[in-house]
Amino acid sequence: MRRLFIDECLSEDITIKGDDAKHLLYAMRVRPEQVFTIVDKESKVAQAKVISCTSDTVQLKLLQYIEDADTEAPIEVVVAQCLPKGDKMEFIVQKAVELGASSVVPVVSRHCVVKYDDKKKLARQQKWQKIADEAVKQCGRTIKPTVEAIVSLEQLAKDYADYTRFICYEAEDEQSFKEMLQSADSKKYLILIGPEGGFAPEEVQLCKDAGFKSISMGKRILRAETASIAALTIVMYEKGDLGGIY
Amino acid sequence: MRRLFIDECLSEDITIKGDDAKHLLYAMRVRPEQVFTIVDKESKVAQAKVISCTSDTVQLKLLQYIEDADTEAPIEVVVAQCLPKGDKMEFIVQKAVELGASSVVPVVSRHCVVKYDDKKKLARQQKWQKIADEAVKQCGRTIKPTVEAIVSLEQLAKDYADYTRFICYEAEDEQSFKEMLQSADSKKYLILIGPEGGFAPEEVQLCKDAGFKSISMGKRILRAETASIAALTIVMYEKGDLGGIY
Repeated sequence: MRRLFIDECLSEDITIKGDDAKHLLYAMRVRPEQVFTIVDKESKVAQAKVISCTSDTVQLKLLQYIEDADTEAPIEVVVAQCLPKGDKMEFIVQKAVELGASSVVPVVSRHCVVKYDDKKKLARQQKWQKIADEAVKQCGRTIKPTVEAIVSLEQLAKDYADYTRFICYEAEDEQSFKEMLQSADSKKYLILIGPEGGFAPEEVQLCKDAGFKSISMGKRILRAETASIAALTIVMYEKGDLGGIY
Repeated sequence: MRRLFIDECLSEDITIKGDDAKHLLYAMRVRPEQVFTIVDKESKVAQAKVISCTSDTVQLKLLQYIEDADTEAPIEVVVAQCLPKGDKMEFIVQKAVELGASSVVPVVSRHCVVKYDDKKKLARQQKWQKIADEAVKQCGRTIKPTVEAIVSLEQLAKDYADYTRFICYEAEDEQSFKEMLQSADSKKYLILIGPEGGFAPEEVQLCKDAGFKSISMGKRILRAETASIAALTIVMYEKGDLGGIY
């Protein structure tokens, strides 16, 4: 079911204008008589029917409130992503939100090419959070995942000690992700993905010492952003709700 | 193991220049004494050691040929993607190749916004094929997946009759992808993903009549390109080799 987040409280008759109307009209292609789901600014969810459309407004009538509207996964997955080049982090944040991540943690590791000073770090975090917020609107989630502050790999290894943590390591040739995941029994996962240059062996050791499991994603080499999305998809499919019915 | 495709035949001493050298030096960060895998223009695979690096050349010594160098999945997965907006198809092609798809079929369906004339169709196909070829180099595959000519949904429904075919349909509320996939027993899969506006109910019916299984990806709404990557990841994880060791 498609969802629209609105910046007001639900009422009997709702007029949608501006960008939200455009999204409804041109991306969701709503037409009179169609019924869909709206989420208000207090996360209340309801079904609404389209009464009329113009080129820039959509008039809705509230049909009923929906009590059990949870689209959240039954597990938490934190995506810890070492800073990739260019605008790839934006892409990763957007996809992580769609796929149900609980948060994204940008990480600085040895082979990260991009370097940010403190001011830039904050600006990036805010930009990524904005992308996450926009993705939330689009994909029908009822909680807004956070993009955390950029941390060092050393710091990340100390945090999240109560999570089942995996480091995707391309040189791992003993432990498969599938095997490790299927034998895990947890509601909280963290996946750590390297930058383009991969991890230094000492970094992998640091993570292992902290309790991470080093895992192989398979025979083919995945780009940083592909590894990130694929690893999240796999955890959500194996342990969460991806590929299920709603 | 990282791989480099070279446009010549393997020999005892190999000098890498140009873009390939840059890729080795700056993306793969090779250093003297490091060992990695090269694939020559005849798909022969060997291990090679870095002898020396300058800012734009890498000198290699061939160590040994590798017989069993197959990085291909044990299953075939065709990604049939209804034309999405903008440059999303390029992205989908790139990721599909990395994740192990056997081919990508661009499809025209009712809600596709982009329209191409015959000349443009051919130009697009060639462009996408080029992107696929580049992705092959990067990700260590030993076969080059093809990007097929753009077909209509009607045509697609007639082809690939010997594949286990799934249509990802957001309004499907009975059949989950996980259940359908786990009960399938095939080496050949096709996943069909809609454009931004989704499928028309008649299109879903057409596909079902042709033997497709309509499946739900879950509660959250995925963008076209996210659905495509996630569906491929799921098939490769459940039935192929993704998440395994190499």
